[in-house]
Amino acid sequence: MGSPSPADQVSRRAQALAGHLRGLHTSMEPSLSPSPCLQYSPPELASPPSDFNLSDMRKLMDGHNLQDRDWLFGLMIQSKLFNPRVAGGRVFVSPDYNQSMEQQREMTMKRIHYLLDCGVFQEWLTGRGPEVEMRKFALHEVIGMYDHSLAVKLGVHYFLWGGAIQFFGTKRHHDKWLRDSENYVIKGCFAMTELGHGSNVRGIETVTTYDSKTGEFVINSPCESAQKYWIGGAANHATHTIVFSQLNINGKSEGVHAFIAQIRDTDGNICPNVRVADCGHKIGLNGVDNGRIWFDNVRIPRENLLNSVADVSPDGQYLSAIKDPDQRFAAFLAPLTSGRVTIATSAVYSSKMSLAIAIRYSLTRRAFSITPNQPEVLLLDYPSHQRRLLPLLAKTYAMSFAANYLKMIYVKRTPESNKTIHVVSSAFKAILTWHNMRTLQECREACGGQGLKTENRIGQMKGEYDVQSTFEGDNNVLMQQVSKALLAEYIAVQKRNRPFKGLGLEHMNKSCPVVPSQLTSSTLRSSQFQTDIFCLRERDLLIRFAAEMSQLQAQGLSREYALLQSYQLAEDLGRAFSDRAILQTFLDAEAAVSSGPLKSMLSLLRSMHVLIILEEDASFLRYGYLSPDNAAGIRKEVTILCSELRPHALALVSSFGIPDAFLSPIAFNWIDANSWSSVQPQQGATVPLQI
Amino acid sequence: MGSPSPADQVSRRAQALAGHLRGLHTSMEPSLSPSPCLQYSPPELASPPSDFNLSDMRKLMDGHNLQDRDWLFGLMIQSKLFNPRVAGGRVFVSPDYNQSMEQQREMTMKRIHYLLDCGVFQEWLTGRGPEVEMRKFALHEVIGMYDHSLAVKLGVHYFLWGGAIQFFGTKRHHDKWLRDSENYVIKGCFAMTELGHGSNVRGIETVTTYDSKTGEFVINSPCESAQKYWIGGAANHATHTIVFSQLNINGKSEGVHAFIAQIRDTDGNICPNVRVADCGHKIGLNGVDNGRIWFDNVRIPRENLLNSVADVSPDGQYLSAIKDPDQRFAAFLAPLTSGRVTIATSAVYSSKMSLAIAIRYSLTRRAFSITPNQPEVLLLDYPSHQRRLLPLLAKTYAMSFAANYLKMIYVKRTPESNKTIHVVSSAFKAILTWHNMRTLQECREACGGQGLKTENRIGQMKGEYDVQSTFEGDNNVLMQQVSKALLAEYIAVQKRNRPFKGLGLEHMNKSCPVVPSQLTSSTLRSSQFQTDIFCLRERDLLIRFAAEMSQLQAQGLSREYALLQSYQLAEDLGRAFSDRAILQTFLDAEAAVSSGPLKSMLSLLRSMHVLIILEEDASFLRYGYLSPDNAAGIRKEVTILCSELRPHALALVSSFGIPDAFLSPIAFNWIDANSWSSVQPQQGATVPLQI
Repeated sequence: MGSPSPADQVSRRAQALAGHLRGLHTSMEPSLSPSPCLQYSPPELASPPSDFNLSDMRKLMDGHNLQDRDWLFGLMIQSKLFNPRVAGGRVFVSPDYNQSMEQQREMTMKRIHYLLDCGVFQEWLTGRGPEVEMRKFALHEVIGMYDHSLAVKLGVHYFLWGGAIQFFGTKRHHDKWLRDSENYVIKGCFAMTELGHGSNVRGIETVTTYDSKTGEFVINSPCESAQKYWIGGAANHATHTIVFSQLNINGKSEGVHAFIAQIRDTDGNICPNVRVADCGHKIGLNGVDNGRIWFDNVRIPRENLLNSVADVSPDGQYLSAIKDPDQRFAAFLAPLTSGRVTIATSAVYSSKMSLAIAIRYSLTRRAFSITPNQPEVLLLDYPSHQRRLLPLLAKTYAMSFAANYLKMIYVKRTPESNKTIHVVSSAFKAILTWHNMRTLQECREACGGQGLKTENRIGQMKGEYDVQSTFEGDNNVLMQQVSKALLAEYIAVQKRNRPFKGLGLEHMNKSCPVVPSQLTSSTLRSSQFQTDIFCLRERDLLIRFAAEMSQLQAQGLSREYALLQSYQLAEDLGRAFSDRAILQTFLDAEAAVSSGPLKSMLSLLRSMHVLIILEEDASFLRYGYLSPDNAAGIRKEVTILCSELRPHALALVSSFGIPDAFLSPIAFNWIDANSWSSVQPQQGATVPLQI
Repeated sequence: MGSPSPADQVSRRAQALAGHLRGLHTSMEPSLSPSPCLQYSPPELASPPSDFNLSDMRKLMDGHNLQDRDWLFGLMIQSKLFNPRVAGGRVFVSPDYNQSMEQQREMTMKRIHYLLDCGVFQEWLTGRGPEVEMRKFALHEVIGMYDHSLAVKLGVHYFLWGGAIQFFGTKRHHDKWLRDSENYVIKGCFAMTELGHGSNVRGIETVTTYDSKTGEFVINSPCESAQKYWIGGAANHATHTIVFSQLNINGKSEGVHAFIAQIRDTDGNICPNVRVADCGHKIGLNGVDNGRIWFDNVRIPRENLLNSVADVSPDGQYLSAIKDPDQRFAAFLAPLTSGRVTIATSAVYSSKMSLAIAIRYSLTRRAFSITPNQPEVLLLDYPSHQRRLLPLLAKTYAMSFAANYLKMIYVKRTPESNKTIHVVSSAFKAILTWHNMRTLQECREACGGQGLKTENRIGQMKGEYDVQSTFEGDNNVLMQQVSKALLAEYIAVQKRNRPFKGLGLEHMNKSCPVVPSQLTSSTLRSSQFQTDIFCLRERDLLIRFAAEMSQLQAQGLSREYALLQSYQLAEDLGRAFSDRAILQTFLDAEAAVSSGPLKSMLSLLRSMHVLIILEEDASFLRYGYLSPDNAAGIRKEVTILCSELRPHALALVSSFGIPDAFLSPIAFNWIDANSWSSVQPQQGATVPLQI
C-alpha cells in the first residue's frame, strides 16, 4: 500500500530517478518513428534534494493524528467503493463526477456505510475530550480530501445533528440519541435555514406551540417562505432532524429554539404531516441530498425540546435561566462554531491538494524554447509561473498553522474563551476559504487545459468548495462581524480606561510601532518588522474605524446604520486582524522548532507569506503604511523569494503527506497516462496496481 | 411569445405592479396559518421608473442584428429540445446539467440540427462581407447565452474548421468544402493542439511528408506527446479535421502547415490508420466531445494542403511566396483571431446574464432588520451589496462597447489593420474574460446559496466559462504579448524618430498629461481627467518597461530572458493599454448619442467604470499616479456613484434585452417557484406556458 508518509516519498524520489535512468518512462510504441519526441521526466529530476526533513515538516503541518490519517487514507485506497482507476500505471481514487446527482448520492451513502463498518466514526458522538475531538477533525479532514460531499454529508450528521444534541441537549437527549446516531442507525439532519431566511436565523418563520393537554409541541410551517431549505440529508436519507423554530408559549414569542422531530420511518417513508422536496442539482456537492421540509402540525413529545438553555414545563410554563432573549439566542449558536472550524481546515487541505498537483505538473511540463534549439523551459522555471504558485504555497503553510491553532483553541474551549473562538473562527473561516478559492483558480489556470479535466481534480474542487464562501456566513459579512467585535473591545477599553486584553490586541497597549522608511532585504525578512507592520495596520484601522463610527453616529445615524456605511473600513480591519493573528500562529509554530534547515525553511515561507500580503493588499499603500518606494522594494524581494523557494517546491508539497492516489494523473507521468495503450480497457485492467 | 425587447419589459413592469396590487403574488396555502409572512414583491416595486429609453439602450448594447437575435431567442424558447421547465408559473430554458457527459453531447447535436433546420446557419460559410459576419456573431452570441457548449461546438465547426478553409484554403477548397460544411453534412474539427504542445503551436510534433509517387501527403503522430488533444468534435461526431503538422519536404522541415484529413466515414466509423480517444469529463462544456487523435501514416491527396500561404508541387517541390518561416507561421495564425473575438463577446453576454439575475434577486430578497420591528432590508439597499454589484454592472457596459468595437474592426479588417486586431483582440479577450469570471463569482456569492443551484445559472456558468481564461492563450501571457507589441512600437518610434501612429498610442506624441493633485467630484467624473490618468499610466509604464528591458539587456540578458524577467511591468502595462483602449470605445459610443437621459446615464456608468479601476488597481498608488488622499476621495466618490446607480439598476439590466426565459427562477417570484405546489409534477405541467 502506498503510504503517504514523506519517508516513502523520499523513496519515491529514488525510484523515479532509477526508473528514469533505465528508460522506463519512454512511452513510444515500436511502430512509431524513433525521432526525438517529448519524454516525461519526473519532478524529482527538476528538484535538488531538500535539506529539511519531510517527515518532520509533515508532522508540523498535519499537527496531530498522523497514524489515524494514514490508516484512513489506506482504507479508502483499498476499497472498490472509492472508484479506483489506473492511469499511467498508477491507481487514483476520486468520485465519478460524471454520475448523476442521484448516483452520486447513492455512492456517498455506500462510502459512509463502509467507513462506519471500518470503525472510522467510533467515539465521534459518545466520546468526549480534546483527544477524541482532534481525532474526529483529522479523520474528517482526510475524508474531505477524497470528496467534499462525503465530508459535508458526514459533517451534517455528526457535527450539526450530533453537535446540537450534545450541546443544546441534556442527559435525556444524550442517553437516547447519541449512540444510535454514532452508529448511523439514526440519520440526522439540521433544519435551521429557511427559504426566506438564511443568515438571519432570528427571522425564521417556523412556529412551534405547546399543547399542555397532550404534553406535545406542535410544529408548523406557516407559509412557503418558512419551508426549511438547503437541509443536507433531508431529500433522501435523514430519519430525524433538529428543527429551529420560533417558540410561542401562551401567545408570547420566546424566540428561536431547537427541537428534535422524526421525518422518516425506518423504512424510509416520510412521516405524516411532513412534506419533503429536493433542492435539486447544484454546481458541486451533488453527493449531498439537500432538501426542503414543510411541517403541518407535526406533534413531538415535550422531551424533544433541546433544553440546555430553556425548557417548558409539562403544564406549559416557559423556564429559562437566561432572561434576555438575545443572550438565549447567542447561547444557541455558540456551539455551532465547530462548523466554521471544519470549513476552515478543509479549505487548507483543498489548497494543499491543488498545489501538490499544479506544482508537480509545473516541474514536468515545458513550454516554449527561450534559446533557439534548446529544450523548452519548465513551467516552474518561468518567473511569472513561480510568482503565481509559490506565494500561494507559502500562504498555505501559514493557513495550516492558523487552522491548527483554531482547532486547538476549539477543543480546549472554556466559557471564557467563547468570544475569542467566535471571532477567530469567523476571521479564519473567511480568510482560509478565500485563500482556497483563489488557490484553486490559480492552480487550475496554471495547469492550462489539464486543469479543466475532472480527473485532475483541481477544477472540479472549484465547484465542490465554492459553497465555503457563503455557508456558515458570507465571508464579507464575517469580516464586518469581526470588526464589530474589535470595536466593542476598543470602546470598552476607552470607557473603562483599562488595557486591552484578549483577541491578541495587547499590542495596542504599547506605543505604536515605528516602521523604518528604508526597507532592506533583512528588515523585510525579520519577524520584528513583519509583526510591527501588521500591528501598525490593525491599530490604525481600528482607530480609524472607531472614529468613523463615532462621527457617523454624531451625525445622527443609529449604530446599525453607521456600521452599514462603514463596511469598507470594517472589511479592511477584519483582514488586518486576521493577518496579524495568522502571522502569530506561524511565529508560534516556528518558535517550537529547534534551529536547523527546517526552521530556516519556515522562516523563508513566513517571509514570503507576509511580503505577498504587503504586495497584494492595497491597504498598505492606501492608508500610507508603505510608500511607493517600499512597495517597489517588496516586489523585488518577492521575486527573490520565489527563486529561493523554487528548488524546494517539490519537497514543500511532498511534506503535505498526501498519498499519490489522492493526487491526479498530471501529477505523475501524464504522457503514459494519456497513451493509446491506456485507452484500451483490457490493457488498462492488466496494469499491476501500485497500492 | 415573450419578446425580449425593452418595450415588453416596460409592460412587464406594468403587469408586475398590477399583479402585486391584486394580491396575486401571495403563495400561502389556505391550510396554513394567516400570520404575516414573507411575500414576494417584484423588483419593479423597488425601482422607480427610469428616465432613459430602454429600447434605445439595448440598441447601443447589442449594437447590431437585434431582430435576428430576438428571432433566435424565440426559436429556442419554442422548442422542447431546449429543455423548457416551468417554475413559479414561468418557462425557463437551459440545458439539463444533471445529464451525463454522453447525454449532454447528444442533446447538443440535436439542438444543432434543429437550428440548422430553422436556417440559423445560412450563409455562415458561403456568405461573405461585414453584414454576414455581424449576423453570424449576433446569432452565435445568442446561442452562447443558452449554453456555452452549444456555442463552442458550433464555433469549432463554423469558425475554426470553416474559417481555416476560408482563410488558409484557396478556391479549390472553398468550392469543395464550404457548402457541405455550412449544411453540416460535413462536420469539421480543428486539430492544432497536442498533448505535449498547447500554446506553443510551433513546437507540435505531428509530421507530414509528401509521396510524389502517389501524389499524397502522409501524416504521422511520431510519439504519444504528438497526439492531437482537446479537439472539439473529435471524440464523437466530426467527419473531417484540419490537421496542423510540421511539413517535411525532402528531409527539410518547412514548419507548421494545415491539411484536411477525413477521420470518420458517413456512417461514423473511424477511418483506417486513424485512432481516436475521448478527453473525458470536464468541469464544464460537457456538451462538447473533446477528443484525441493519432495518425498512423494517414494518406491524403496533395490538394488537401491548405495552400493560401505555401504549396507543394505534384513532383514534390515546396513553393511559398513567403520565404521567412516565422512570417509564414504568423500568416497561418492571423485569421484565427476570430476565436478571440467570439470569446471576448461571449464573456460579456455571460456577465450580463449573471448580473441580470443577481440584481433582480437583490431587489426582492431581504435580510436583517436594521431598525427594530421594521421590515428587513433589501439586499441592494445595503451599501456593501451595491459596492459588490453596481461597479460590475457599469464595467459590463464598458465591456459591451469594447466587444462591439472589436467585432467592428474585425469584420472591416484589412491587411494593414491586422496588427491592431491582433493586439486589441489579445488585450480585450483577457480583460473581458477576467471581468466575466469575477462577475460570475461575485454574482454567485451575492445570491448566497441560491447562486449554487444549477437552475439559477450563475454558478453553473462559472464552470462552463472557466475555459476562457486559458484557451486561445493564457490571459497573463496575452497581457505580456500586448506589451511586447507596444514595446516594439516604442523602439521603432525611437529609432526612426517618427511620431506614434496606431494602437491608440498617438497620445504619446503630446506632452504628458497633468493630473490635478486635488480631485473634486466633478474632476473625477470628467472624461478629460479619466482619459488623462489612463494615458498617463500607459505612457509611464511603457517608458518604464522599455527602460527595464534595456537595462536587463545591457546586463547581458537576451531579449527573451529580459522579457521573462519583466513580466510584472509587462502585465501592468497590458492592463494600462486595455483600460485606455476600452475607455476610448466607451467615449466613442457616448459621443454618438445626443444629449438627454440616455447620455447622462452613460456618463454615470463611464465614471463608475473608471473610478472603480482607479480604486481597485493598485498600480495607481504603486507607481504614484494617485496619492493616498486621492485614493480616499475616489473611494468616497464610488460610494456616491453606487447610490446614484441604485435606482437605475433594474432598468440597466433590463436594457440587456435578455428574455425572461433565459434568466432563472430567482430573478422572478422565487417564493412561488419554490412552493409546494411547484413540487407536484402534475400541477407543474398544467401551469399555462407564458411564451
